Order: sequence, then C-alpha cells, then structure tokens
Amino acid sequence: MTVPTAAAAAECRDILTRLGVPASVWSSDGFEARSPIDGSVAGRVAETPDLDVVADRATAAFHQWKRLPAPRRGELVRLLGEELRASKDDLARLVTLEAGKIVSEGLGEVQEMIDICDFAVGLSRQIYGLTIASERPGHHMRETWQPLGPVLVISAFNFPVAVWAWNACLALVCGDPVIWKPSEKTPLTALATQAVLDRAIARFGEAPEGLAQLVIGGREAGEALAADPRIPLVSATGSTRMGRAVAQTVAARLGRSLLELGGNNAMIVTPSADLDMAVRAIAFSAVGTCGQRCTTLRRLLVHESIADALIARLKAAYETLPVGDPRGDGVLIGPLIDEAAGAAFDDALMQAEAEGGEVVVGGTRGAEGPGVYVRPAIVRMPAQTAVVQHETFAPILYVLTWSDFDEAVAMQNAVPQGLSSCVFTDSVREAEAFLSAWGSDCGIANVNIGPSGAEIGGAFGGEKDTGGGRESGSDAWKAYMRRQTQTVNFSRELPLAQGVKFEV
Amino acid sequence: MTVPTAAAAAECRDILTRLGVPASVWSSDGFEARSPIDGSVAGRVAETPDLDVVADRATAAFHQWKRLPAPRRGELVRLLGEELRASKDDLARLVTLEAGKIVSEGLGEVQEMIDICDFAVGLSRQIYGLTIASERPGHHMRETWQPLGPVLVISAFNFPVAVWAWNACLALVCGDPVIWKPSEKTPLTALATQAVLDRAIARFGEAPEGLAQLVIGGREAGEALAADPRIPLVSATGSTRMGRAVAQTVAARLGRSLLELGGNNAMIVTPSADLDMAVRAIAFSAVGTCGQRCTTLRRLLVHESIADALIARLKAAYETLPVGDPRGDGVLIGPLIDEAAGAAFDDALMQAEAEGGEVVVGGTRGAEGPGVYVRPAIVRMPAQTAVVQHETFAPILYVLTWSDFDEAVAMQNAVPQGLSSCVFTDSVREAEAFLSAWGSDCGIANVNIGPSGAEIGGAFGGEKDTGGGRESGSDAWKAYMRRQTQTVNFSRELPLAQGVKFEV
Amino acid sequence: MTVPTAAAAAECRDILTRLGVPASVWSSDGFEARSPIDGSVAGRVAETPDLDVVADRATAAFHQWKRLPAPRRGELVRLLGEELRASKDDLARLVTLEAGKIVSEGLGEVQEMIDICDFAVGLSRQIYGLTIASERPGHHMRETWQPLGPVLVISAFNFPVAVWAWNACLALVCGDPVIWKPSEKTPLTALATQAVLDRAIARFGEAPEGLAQLVIGGREAGEALAADPRIPLVSATGSTRMGRAVAQTVAARLGRSLLELGGNNAMIVTPSADLDMAVRAIAFSAVGTCGQRCTTLRRLLVHESIADALIARLKAAYETLPVGDPRGDGVLIGPLIDEAAGAAFDDALMQAEAEGGEVVVGGTRGAEGPGVYVRPAIVRMPAQTAVVQHETFAPILYVLTWSDFDEAVAMQNAVPQGLSSCVFTDSVREAEAFLSAWGSDCGIANVNIGPSGAEIGGAFGGEKDTGGGRESGSDAWKAYMRRQTQTVNFSRELPLAQGVKFEV
Amino acid sequence: MTVPTAAAAAECRDILTRLGVPASVWSSDGFEARSPIDGSVAGRVAETPDLDVVADRATAAFHQWKRLPAPRRGELVRLLGEELRASKDDLARLVTLEAGKIVSEGLGEVQEMIDICDFAVGLSRQIYGLTIASERPGHHMRETWQPLGPVLVISAFNFPVAVWAWNACLALVCGDPVIWKPSEKTPLTALATQAVLDRAIARFGEAPEGLAQLVIGGREAGEALAADPRIPLVSATGSTRMGRAVAQTVAARLGRSLLELGGNNAMIVTPSADLDMAVRAIAFSAVGTCGQRCTTLRRLLVHESIADALIARLKAAYETLPVGDPRGDGVLIGPLIDEAAGAAFDDALMQAEAEGGEVVVGGTRGAEGPGVYVRPAIVRMPAQTAVVQHETFAPILYVLTWSDFDEAVAMQNAVPQGLSSCVFTDSVREAEAFLSAWGSDCGIANVNIGPSGAEIGGAFGGEKDTGGGRESGSDAWKAYMRRQTQTVNFSRELPLAQGVKFEV
Repeated sequence: MTVPTAAAAAECRDILTRLGVPASVWSSDGFEARSPIDGSVAGRVAETPDLDVVADRATAAFHQWKRLPAPRRGELVRLLGEELRASKDDLARLVTLEAGKIVSEGLGEVQEMIDICDFAVGLSRQIYGLTIASERPGHHMRETWQPLGPVLVISAFNFPVAVWAWNACLALVCGDPVIWKPSEKTPLTALATQAVLDRAIARFGEAPEGLAQLVIGGREAGEALAADPRIPLVSATGSTRMGRAVAQTVAARLGRSLLELGGNNAMIVTPSADLDMAVRAIAFSAVGTCGQRCTTLRRLLVHESIADALIARLKAAYETLPVGDPRGDGVLIGPLIDEAAGAAFDDALMQAEAEGGEVVVGGTRGAEGPGVYVRPAIVRMPAQTAVVQHETFAPILYVLTWSDFDEAVAMQNAVPQGLSSCVFTDSVREAEAFLSAWGSDCGIANVNIGPSGAEIGGAFGGEKDTGGGRESGSDAWKAYMRRQTQTVNFSRELPLAQGVKFEV
Repeated sequence: MTVPTAAAAAECRDILTRLGVPASVWSSDGFEARSPIDGSVAGRVAETPDLDVVADRATAAFHQWKRLPAPRRGELVRLLGEELRASKDDLARLVTLEAGKIVSEGLGEVQEMIDICDFAVGLSRQIYGLTIASERPGHHMRETWQPLGPVLVISAFNFPVAVWAWNACLALVCGDPVIWKPSEKTPLTALATQAVLDRAIARFGEAPEGLAQLVIGGREAGEALAADPRIPLVSATGSTRMGRAVAQTVAARLGRSLLELGGNNAMIVTPSADLDMAVRAIAFSAVGTCGQRCTTLRRLLVHESIADALIARLKAAYETLPVGDPRGDGVLIGPLIDEAAGAAFDDALMQAEAEGGEVVVGGTRGAEGPGVYVRPAIVRMPAQTAVVQHETFAPILYVLTWSDFDEAVAMQNAVPQGLSSCVFTDSVREAEAFLSAWGSDCGIANVNIGPSGAEIGGAFGGEKDTGGGRESGSDAWKAYMRRQTQTVNFSRELPLAQGVKFEV
Repeated sequence: MTVPTAAAAAECRDILTRLGVPASVWSSDGFEARSPIDGSVAGRVAETPDLDVVADRATAAFHQWKRLPAPRRGELVRLLGEELRASKDDLARLVTLEAGKIVSEGLGEVQEMIDICDFAVGLSRQIYGLTIASERPGHHMRETWQPLGPVLVISAFNFPVAVWAWNACLALVCGDPVIWKPSEKTPLTALATQAVLDRAIARFGEAPEGLAQLVIGGREAGEALAADPRIPLVSATGSTRMGRAVAQTVAARLGRSLLELGGNNAMIVTPSADLDMAVRAIAFSAVGTCGQRCTTLRRLLVHESIADALIARLKAAYETLPVGDPRGDGVLIGPLIDEAAGAAFDDALMQAEAEGGEVVVGGTRGAEGPGVYVRPAIVRMPAQTAVVQHETFAPILYVLTWSDFDEAVAMQNAVPQGLSSCVFTDSVREAEAFLSAWGSDCGIANVNIGPSGAEIGGAFGGEKDTGGGRESGSDAWKAYMRRQTQTVNFSRELPLAQGVKFEV
Repeated sequence: MTVPTAAAAAECRDILTRLGVPASVWSSDGFEARSPIDGSVAGRVAETPDLDVVADRATAAFHQWKRLPAPRRGELVRLLGEELRASKDDLARLVTLEAGKIVSEGLGEVQEMIDICDFAVGLSRQIYGLTIASERPGHHMRETWQPLGPVLVISAFNFPVAVWAWNACLALVCGDPVIWKPSEKTPLTALATQAVLDRAIARFGEAPEGLAQLVIGGREAGEALAADPRIPLVSATGSTRMGRAVAQTVAARLGRSLLELGGNNAMIVTPSADLDMAVRAIAFSAVGTCGQRCTTLRRLLVHESIADALIARLKAAYETLPVGDPRGDGVLIGPLIDEAAGAAFDDALMQAEAEGGEVVVGGTRGAEGPGVYVRPAIVRMPAQTAVVQHETFAPILYVLTWSDFDEAVAMQNAVPQGLSSCVFTDSVREAEAFLSAWGSDCGIANVNIGPSGAEIGGAFGGEKDTGGGRESGSDAWKAYMRRQTQTVNFSRELPLAQGVKFEV
C-alpha cells in the first residue's frame, strides 16, 4: 500500500503543540518516543523523578476529592468528555502515529474514552449501595460505597489511551485520584491525554492538585508504585508475566489488584454459521491492530465439515489484506510495535511448524519498512501444542478442527488464558450451551461476534491467567471503592444478632 | 463461678457419637483435640493424607455440580438448614466445649449457620446478573454469573463453624465444591459439622462425591492447597500474618483470595451517647468470647468530658464479670483458647504499661483452671502506642480520650487494621459524619451498636490489613462466581463497537 | 378412562377434617362447594358477614406487623413452607377435587406455594433499597421500601391456592396483612390453606390477629373491598372484564391495582423447530388443566412448510388423550369447572366454524359425566377472526400458518391480550428477534418452552388487556411496598438542589 | 420591591424569537399566553387540531424508535443536554416570565432538565434487566425491559419545563415517543422547549417524525389522549381532582398511569433542631415559588417548647420578605399565577380563621400589581382542621404544636396527601424513627432539609392522594418500559416447572 511520506515524528510534534503539550516536555532526555510507522523519533520524555512525591500528592488530593459530592466529581468527567470530543481527531491521530493503529481504530479508541465519560457521568448520580432489611427492631442497615484512595493505572502500548480512560473516569467519579504510568512505548499519547484532561480540570475549577498525575517510567517505576501502601488499588494491563509480579507485590501489602493480562482468544465455527459474517469477523479480529489486541483472535476452531471451505475463503481474504502505513487510505494492517514483536512473530511461526503446523498464508515480513510490517499468518495446527497455548502478540491465527460441539468447547477452554471467546452459529442449542455454566470459561463470550471490540457498557476482563480483573461497565466501578456495611440502632434496646444473650 | 465438673472431653465424645461421627475418626494419632475449658483431650484426629486427591475430587465434583440448576443446589442447602436446626443444641455445645464460648454464643453461632442457609436458599433462585443495553442494532448483551470451581475455606478457632457456613452455603449454591481446612485447634466441631452436612447430602440424593471435603491439617496443608491451581478461590480467615502469606501464594498463580484477617476495632463515645447502652455494648463487645473475636472491641475512644464517668461504670461492671466454665449458668467469660493466648495477654499488658498505660481493672489470671482463665482488662493509654496498633487476641480494652469529633475519627482510622468500628451518639451530625466518605475507614461501621455481632444480611469484612474480603450477605456471593459478559448478534450485520470500520 | 368411584365430596370432607377445618365451617348455608369431577357437593360455606370489620382488623394488624423486622416476618413464611410441605399431599388432592386438576398438577401447584415460601424467606433479609450519591455536600440519600398496608387478594378458581401464595408470601414478608377473597367456586381449598397457615401462625407466636383473613363472598364482596381506602393494594386475578371493573374502582380512590387478567397465548413454530418437543409442549400447554390456565396455549402459528405434518402429529396425539376423573392413573384431562364453561366451549367452536374454521380433532362432549368432560379441539383457522381474538376458557387450539417470520411475530401480537408467548426454533436469529424490542409484546416470552408453567423466580404477568401486573419473582415484591426517597443533611449548610439560591 | 418596567410580554417575544419559535405559532387565536408578572399577553397559541393524528404519528414513530439501540437513543438526549446548556438563560427567563418564578428558580428548573439529561444518557447504556437462575437444567432465564410505546405527559404550570424533561428524557432513552400537553397557562415555555429539542433532533439526524409532539389544549385534550389505547402510559402532574379523573379514564382501558398530584407537606421541628437552619429552610420551602410547588411546606409541626421562639423568628423573617417582579434583584416572592389563585389564598385564610386559626403574619394582597401579589401568611391553628387537610396552592403556612414525637409523626401522616415530609432534629433516634416503617408515610422524607427541592437522582413522587407515581431517578424509568420474563430452553428435554409431569 502507499505509505504517506510525511515522517510520523513531525506529525506527532505538530499535534502535541496543537494540544498544548509544551516542547520542553518531549524534548527531554528520557524515554525515546518512536513511531512504529517509520521508526522516526518524535521526542524524548524524561522519567518522573520522585515517586514518593507523586504518592504523597495523590494522598493529599484524595482527602479533598472524596469530600466533593459524586455528581460534582462527575461534572469533571463530563467536561473531560467535551474536551475529548473537541480533540478527538488529534488524539486519535496520535494513537495512529505512536501505536501504529489504522485511522478508524484510532478514532474508535478515542470514542471509547468518550463513551466511558458518558457512562461515568451517569454513574456519578448512582454509586448505588443497598438498604438492607435488619433482623433487629429499631435498626436500619445499609451498604455504602466509599471512595478508596489513589489508583495506580499501568497501561500497555496497544490501547495507549482508552484503558486509562476506563480506569480514570470510574476512579474520578468514585472519589479516587489517579496515577497513570503508561507504557514507555507510548508516552506522547499519554502526555496529550493529560493535556486534554488539564483543560477539563481548568474549566472545572475545584480539582485538588495531584488529582491526576502522569508518571513516565519503566518497569521499576511500576513496581515501586505497586509496592506503595498509599495506593490501595493497582490496575494493571499487560502481559501475564508482568501481572503476576504486580499481583504478588500488591498482595504482600494486602492491597487490591485489578489485572487485565494476556488473552488467547478462540472462535468456534459451527456448520450453521453464516460464513460470510464469520470470514469478516475473523479477519477483523485476527489481524486488526496487527494482532496486538489482548482480544485478538488467535485460535480458530472449525467444524471439520466446513474447515476447508472456510480456510480457502480466509486465505483469499488474507492474500489481499492491505498492509502499510496506517495513515494510508484503505490500509487495514499497520506495523508491529517494534522489532522485538517482529522477532516474536518469526519465532512463533518457526515453532508452530516444528510442532506440526502448516502455514496456509502469510507469515513473511513486508518491505513497507523502516517500520516492522508483516503479513498476517494462518497456520493449520494438528493440536493445541505449546505455541498455541502461548500468546504471541502478533497476527498469527492457528486453525484447528473438531467434530463434536462439546469437544470444541473443551478445546476453547484448554489454554491457560481466559479473556475472550466466541462462537459463530445460528443454533440456539449451541449458542446457549456456549454461554452456559458448562460453556466458555472466559470473561467475555460472544455469539456471532468476534472476540474483539467490546462495548463499554459491559464489564471487561477475563479469568485464569488473564488475571480476573474487570473494568468499564456493569458494576466494575465497585473495584474502585470501599464497601461499608452500616447499621444504625435507633431504639433504646441493644438486641444482639442471632439472638445472642449477653447481659452484664 | 461454679465450674461444671464433668470433663469437657467426655461430653465432646458423647456429642460426636450422637451426631454420628465414628470414634475411629477422633481416636486417631494426629492433631490433639483439647478443650480449653479444662485442657482435657477429647480425641486425636489424623491429618488428611493426600491433598492432591482432594483437589482432584473437588474438580471432578465441580464438573457435575455446576450443571445442576442453582435452585436445585439450593435445595441441598435448605436440607442442611433443616439438619442444623435438628442438631443445633449438640453442635452449639461442641462449640462451647472446643472453642470455649459461653452457651448463648455457641447457640448464636449455629443460628448464624442456619440464617445463612435461609439466605442462600433464597439466593439460589436469584444469582442475578444483568441484561444490558447494547449500542449495536440486533445485539443483546447480558452479564451472567457462572460457577467458579472448588473453593478452599481456611477457618479459625474462634468461629469454628459459622465461617465455614458463610462460605460453604454461598459456594454450594453458586455451583462450587468446598474444601474445608478448619483450625487445628477445633477439629471436632468440623467433624461434627461435616456429619450434619453428610445427612443433608444423603437426603438430597444427587450430590457428586467430593462436593464438600474436610481436610485436617496444619499450616502446610493450607499453604499447599492455596498454591493449587485447581482451586480458583481461597477464602481464609485468621491472622494478618497468615493472610499475607496466603495472598502472595495465591497471587503467584493469579488465583483469587477472600481474606478476613485481623481487626483492631474501636468505639467512639460522644457526649450525647446513651451511657447505659454504651456500657452494655462495651462489655459485650470487649469481653465476649473472651476477647477472641475478630470484631472484639479493642479501643475505646471517649470524649474527655465523659471519660471518667464512663470508665468508672465500666470498672464496676468489669469487677463483677462472671468468669469460668462457659457451660456454667450465668458465666459470660470462658477461657482463652490456650496458654499461648494467655501469654500474649500478659505480654500485651506489660507492654502497655511500659508505653505509659494504666490498668484500670483486670489483667490478672484466674484460678478457674486448668484452662487459661483471665480477668478482662481495661487500660487507659496516653496515645495509640505500638501495643494499641497491634491486635492481641485477648480481652484487653485500651481507653483513650479526645476533645474534637474529627480527632476521634482520625484516631479510629489511625491503625493498620480496618475491620469494624462504631460510634455511640444521638447526634445525626456525628453519626452520619462517621458513616460518610470522611468517616470510618472500616468495612463495618455501626451507630449505637458495638463493633461485634454482625447480621448475615450485610457483607462482612474489612479493609487495609484486614484483607479486603467480604463474606455472607449483600452480593458477597459474587466472589464465588465467574462473571461473564455475553453479547449475541442476531442481526445479519457485523457492526463494530465505537463505530470502528474494518471492511475486508 | 376409568373414573374412581368414590364421590369427590366425601374425599373432600375427609381431607378438610384431617387438615383441621371444622365441619361447622363447611356445613353452613352459603356458597355451594361442588366438585367438577362428579358434581357432588362437599359442603356449603357461609359468606363473610362484615367486610368493614375485616378491613379494620387488617389495619390494626398492619400497625403491629410493620414494626416486626422483615427477617422475623420471614420466619412466619418459613414456617408456612414447613407446614405446606407437611400437608402437601392433602392440599394438592383438594385442588384436584375442587378445581378438577390432575394429580400431578395439583401437586405442582402446592409445590409452587412451597417455592415461593423459600423465595420470600430469602427476600426477607434483602428488601433492598438503594443508597444514592447526593449532589449536595454533607448529605446522604437513600431509597427505602416501607410496608404498604393491607393487601386484598382476589383469586380465581383455576389456581385456587398458588396465586394466593404468590401474593401472601411477598405481602407478609413486606410487612402487609393479607385479605383473601378466593373464587366462590373453590372455597374449600381456601379454607384448607388458611388452616395450614394458622398452624404456622400458632408456631410463630407473635402474629397480630387479623394478619391473614379469608373472606368468603361473591363479586359484590370483591367490589366492596376494592373500593375500601384502607386497602392500598388490590391484587386481582381473573377475567379482563372483572379486572377492568376493579381497576376503575381502585383508581377512583387513587389506590394501587395489581392485575393478572386474561391471556390469549400463542406459539410460533418455525422450520428449524424440534417437532418432537413441540408436539409435547403444545399438548401440555393446550390441554393441561383442561385449557383453563391463563397461560394456556390458544393459538398455534406454524410455518406453512411444516403445518400439515405438525397438525397430523397433533391430531394423532389428541386422539389418544386420556380424559376423565383427574384422580385416575394416567388421566391428563379432567373436567371443565362447570356447565357454563362447557357451553362456552361449544359456542366458541360453533363461532369458529362460522368464521371459516375447520375442526381437525376433538370438540365434542364426553360421556364421563356427571362432570363436564370435553374432547380438546384443534381448529384450523383462515385468519385471526373474532373468536380467535377472544379468550375462551376451554381446550380449543386455533391453528394458523405464516410464511415469513416477521409476519408470525405480527400475528402473535395482533390480539388484545399480552400474557404469554413462545417460539419453537433452533435459530438464534429467530429466537432473539422474538425476544427483542420488536418481538413478542407479552409479559412472558419463551423459547422452546410452551407458554404455560412459569418458574417462581421470574416476574409473572402480562401487558395490554392482561392488566400489567407482576407477581412472584424478580422485584415484583416492590408492588407490595411504598418507596420512600430519604435525604439526610448532616452538614451545617442548607444547599439547595440544582444550585438554587434563596437566602432570606 | 422595584418592579422592572419592561413589559413581560415583550421580553417573552424576544426570547421566543431568539430560540427560533416562529411568530406565527404564538400569534394565533387560541390560548392566551399571559405573564403573571404584569398580566401582559405575550401571544396566543392555537389548539392542536387533530389528536388522532398525533397518536398515529407517535405510534408510527414508536415502531422506528424502539429499534434504535438505547445508547444511540441516549445520544439524542445528550444533544438535548448540550442545547439546554446553550439556551439555559433564555429558557430560564421564559420560565420566570410565564410562570412567575424568581430568576434563580428559573435557572434551577432548567438545570434540573440538564441534570436529568446527564442521568438519562448514563442510563441509556444500562436499562438493566436481570439474568435469573432457572430451576430447569439447560434453561436460561432473563428479564428484559422493552420499549413501551407513546407516553403522554400532562404537566402543570408551576414546573412548566422540568417535569416534561423528567418524563421525556427517560421515555426517549427507554424507546418511547413523547406527547406533551403542557398547562394551558404556560404554552410559551413549552414551545421554546420544543424548539430546543428540535435543534437536538436536527443534529441527531435519525429521529423519526412524531417522536416528540407538543399538544396545545385544555382539559378535554388531556382527557381525549388519556383515553386513547394507542398511548400505554399517561404521566400526569397536577391536582388530585385531575389525577383521579385521569386514573379512571386510563384504568377503563387497562392502561398505565403515573400520577404526581397534590402534596400537603409538613415539617416537624424538634427541640434539638438547629433553629437557624430551620428558619431558612422553612422560609424557602413555604414561600418559594410563591407557595405554588407541589412540595411547598404547608404544615409546620413544632415542639411546644420551641414554638413561640420559632414563630417569632419566622414572623420577623416574613416581615422583610422581598415580594415583587420576580425579575428584580433580590426578589424572593413573585406573583401568584392568576387571580383564581389569589382568591383561593383569600378564601383559605378566611376559612382558617373561621376554624380557629390566628394569622401571625402576612395574608394580605400587595400593591405590586397588575399581577396578583400577596404577602405569605403564617397561621397558628388549634388543630388540623378542614382547611389544613386541603392543599391551597398559595403561600400559607399552618403552624401546630405537639409534645411527644410519636404524636408529631401521627400529625404528619394525618392528611390525605402523601408527597413530601421532613424533620429538623439532631437526634439519631428521632431522625431514624421518622425514616422508619412507622415514620413518615410520604414518598419523600428528609432530615434537616425542607420538603422542597429534590435531586434528580432519587425517585420523585408520593403516596395516597398524591397518586403513587415516581419520576426522575432510581428505577423510575421502569414505568416507561414493559417488563418481559424470558426463558430459553436449550436442552433436548422439556422439564416442567414445579416438577409437574405431563407425558402425552
């Protein structure tokens, strides 16, 4: 595909300037901000020097912020939504430039930020706890959700802004300051987002200093903050390896973790599936974001009777997939994030072949460089071997077949990860079995939808090695609060629960 | 107080026989079952030999149990409730004999088991998830709560049966098998409870083998099971030290912990408090169960204007507290669980005095032995020194004064633990401030009720070093399940969320 | 089928005696209690003389009952459940004798009473209201559900006891006394149920007099009570004509109605349906209770491609349907309730034929008398003519065909009633379209289940001429309570909502 | 107070023009739009000619609108919120001009519209139903809330725009078209609001014609639409007399009513009350909107020990209340709506005196005319006589005393209306008793807040003669939807609920 000639770096700098991020911030001597599109370096961002100060400022902010009524806190998030709408194109473009997503995906990611703002504003007048029937006369019982304290958000390069928004919008409405440590691969979108938020804060007028802080740093910064007892909640998105380390660090101080780790997502295709829809859904979810979504489709489990036909159609579709500069018109596949990702792609394909796999299509590097451009691969596998059990963050789709629906469900569940899953079928029996207690073991289960692309209204997250956290919709906000069971005795008696008698 | 002369051990054996626990089980060569009342040994219970088999059987049971409809699973819990009603006196007596609780408290503990059965039966026809408005035409979204898998319950000596019931009743209804590792200090009540459950299981007729297993063992057994990836949830009650270890072990495998650890519970008494009620509430919650509840009142924070009067009344009340064999009529204070607890009592008092404390009343050992009987102590402290920050599992009440209500709340919150808290006041302003976002930081906050003695309808648990878990009422059941966000596309289109376009 | 020879009347009297209903009550001179099985008269029950006293006693009971904690009120319902379990066979037999249901249906009806008891007991520790985020600092807001007052339950002959239980169990737990006016056709089951409840009340010990009263009377009694302002809620089950009258009476005094009126329930059968299952579901739901359920299947909407085959199978099944004394082994169809019902059956068939219908099978009277026994009819109709729009309380199934699924849904919705509906299909698209905003317009919508036989866990009721009421599960209990929005200002300021300023 | 000299009529016309309401609409020959400030006539608005067309268009709109996803429908409401923010000053001014409210109240009313927009937008991604545990294997049960159909909103002059917004925002998000019949006294604010909505609709782009219609008409128009079976829900705000008529009309066709009728709201003041706050709260809630709110404070129930002091302070405050043109700086009391209201004010005072009342302050007409300006009155009453039982829509505050708190609560409850109520106290016992099952019988119960000025987050409405409806927050949205209980059988069996057996 045609690659736009403008260096990505220059475009980045223009946008940052337009969004009000001063050049001093990105002309520093810390982390290199490099565009995966062409490897050009847009700037260097200095590491945050003193994390102790960060935690202290967040704590101080908490004591003010928690006293503001939640609907008032929601007003800040509403203003953030307005600012995001106003800066949508710029911020989306930055996502494209720094994470390599195609334009539509960049816009979609910012839209997701906007959506969660709307959701959080509504939530700010709810934060529903319960009133509960008490067994004691003259008593009333209720459950109230209280602000929790500073929340650390560790986000990954592949959703450089949306994941922050999922966390930050809920946290802010819930009464919690936010400390954000973005991926060191995407510092610019983080800076830009912070600038947008700062505009909302300025309009809002009564946010305490330190309410929303950005920490530029690497793994050590994340670990140091994760260990800090002043931060009751650590919400971390990334690899299972990272998550396991964070989980233990936080557990050692009896803190709370919200983990969104690796996925290894499958689609089951049954004979009654609408294959036109399936082909489109597979293509989007297997190659979108160049296979670098945590919800990317990695395993295709096809009924044996339709496997050859489906694979033939996929092969044809893959052969014409437009790879290239994600800014280009019609491009659907941008670059991998870096050369390490390219190497992982190569290695996984080699391992797959060693384990009996047969590459049906793709699997090679492209000439679109200097970024790392690959041809998405489809690999038929004889079984769910070691490489299939492992999440390689690149566009490789393993295809396996089955003959019995229960077997297909068992295959779907037979990996360590538990994020997203789906079935393509028009059978009520198959669809509902997939959604039943003996169906998919994942946090997300779709019917006639790929594993990727969740709405913000549902809770997002997965089980097993995916880490068990839930973000975004439903009552995911409860993770950002402290539950308090409250009982008030307004009688002149002191009855004990369970009828216990104890008279001094 | 008069001590009934019958050896506690003999009475234990009679009850076990009556409840159908064969002598072979408690005439083994493992853990010694010793009554704290008189130190007599009722039996010896062998350690469970093979924990791998236990986990395997639980896993197998899970695959059957999760397929039964929840209301059907609820029927087993209903039958358990019937059996508990039938065996209430015996089981309560065993609690008295093995844990040293007074008769009324033993009965209350079994009543709590019965209450949670009733609650769980109702829940079994709810297990409410959500249907959620989808942003895509021809889509429907819902959130379903699925069975999770085997649940490990680690319980402590001080609630030898109720905590199991809180966990087991919810787990069973939610579709999860239960593995119970009771305290090695209370194996007999565990055996008896298991026998009662077995009767319910027999009547029920279709419970899979391995649905509810009892593991006799020490800390190593607990750690080994906590590390087992076949057990997705570990619910552990005990010391903060234990909880911290369990939390890290479980985190290392990305499992889920539900922790109920130490408390260091305070009561604030304000000038408008009803002192008659306060005195009674303090006495019950500070000396009940001989100060060995996780919700025991340990810190009394009194307004300076009423401190002397209140302390004088408490001193008078404490001086006549009836200590002795908990089976005795009118006895309110039984023995400590063992000599280590007695030593901790002595040590804490010594430390308190070294830190400037003044013992107002109590603090000595009693002659009621051979069990460890002490006189509950009240100690005026100049500040919340080290000993006050620490939970000593014995009846010591530290008294401190304050002059400003905000100061009192700050004192309440200035300890590492966060379980239970309360205020005695008739002021709406004080009461609601205590219950507000800037009030108590505990999981439980009461007004004109002591910190102890929760109803099963509310969620039970606490924050900070208490571990963050919630059991019993409200939606605590969700911890025993897996949340699944489900979206079904029943249209002929494939719209993407957030308006993303990706057309192959 | 063989008809048991024992006169139904004698058996009734035996059971009443066994259940403790004194003969004086049913040997009076009021309403004749006649068994539809053989027309034998089991007794005569006197009309309740003074409805003013009834309302007064209920009001007095309310003021005591509402002060009992809800979990304590739940204990009465738990005891009722125990008593119903103990008297299940007797009460079910009485349902068979007085309403003419087959044995299994009688047992099922009592089981439904038991199920709702379990549900209500669980509810008694919930009665969840909300705590809600307030926009004003130092304010807390909550929504509490308060007891409402006496509830009048008007029930119909076809569910002579379950409908009372649905209402009474919720009402009692919610804090409301109950006044029950059963159908004048089934006074004996009402008396027996009241006797069972009285046993529970006696065991409970603290129910106020007048908590649950039985009113024997006709339409005038119902109307008089419905007009009484001391009764805030009237829950009425019966015909649309009756419901319309009650609704207006209650509206005139601004009271609350809960109406469960007529149904005209359809099943759509699509080409992908499992016809074996469909045939069985149709038979049960069209002829069960001799077509006298409000959820009886009355309209069968079959895709034209399978209509002939399905009708042929139904015809065969209908030809061997065992009609007769419902006490008989294997009997599936008992008598109609009385001769008026028989006449309505005859008339409807005549009208159907006049409107172009063709009777496929059945439609005649049987010789099993002296009760009114008929042969369930299937009638092919050219269109949904007047007779098809009308609910005839008898076993007549109208069959119509369609070619397009949207047309089928439109046919389903094109009647005035809106109770229950269903589709038999294995297509996800059809099933979910049926359940969507543009699908069935009924209160109940099933997939691969007949329209009849709801579980108590869901809310039961329908739209349009069915009256809009909901009973039983979900949050149907809210109809029995008064919602109160409560806001407490614990600050020293008086901020107004919406930022209004008004400073005197 | 100074009365701005500009004729209200001229200002109205300027604003209408600015908001885009064409002069042709308000220069017609129908209802006279007269400003209560000075009686000037701003325009004449023609009656809507054909109500049948209105209902038809709403029905057609419904079939399109219900198919749009709820979050998409929410987008229209979000745009409405934006437009309201942009036109806030103009619309608020029109409220002042046409309803006579002071400026701050006008702004507050529009703010309330904006708040409910935010709330409804959040709701649009929720519309939560339930998934429910089914008792049958291979079944799944859920409760879905479906769009209901066109909603008729009848609003009153005193909240000429907010009440429409409460209803319309929820209805639109829930999938329902809206037909609005405003008070014939305030047609201009209705036209202006419709113009604002039209701008949002134009930006939205895909709203069906007829989605939101305005009907100008009198009582007959309201009655005709209330009787129309195409309109499943009638939400009516106004007098109890009007509500009773609507309720019966709607009941006759088994439709659904949501009634917000008269209030007769009381405040209890106890000895522990903060009298500074009480005085301010009383003044605002008794004289705000010139006593023409449904939540206006009408009855002051004071403990005898503080009555004289409190009345003296109130008298002093009342004597300096600034009455006059509501546009004037510092004015707190504008005109009554019309001369009929003035006459009712005079009559009530006369009746009160005849019934033993003593006018403490106020009660006279002012010279501010040509509008109807009165001096708010305080009247000490010996008992709750006939006039006290009746809602007079004017600023008259009846004062009564009590000696025992239970007596005060009984007095509060002893009127036919049940809208709003409050207590001023700092006693936990009194406050919580007031909020208990034996406390206030109203839909709204406040502590240390006047009866007036609810937040949109709670449900708004009252019991008894107030009509029982609930609008705005909490789950009030359910009134605008149709509940559907859905069960899907995905097994190969046909188990019946309650274990019924019926095998053909």
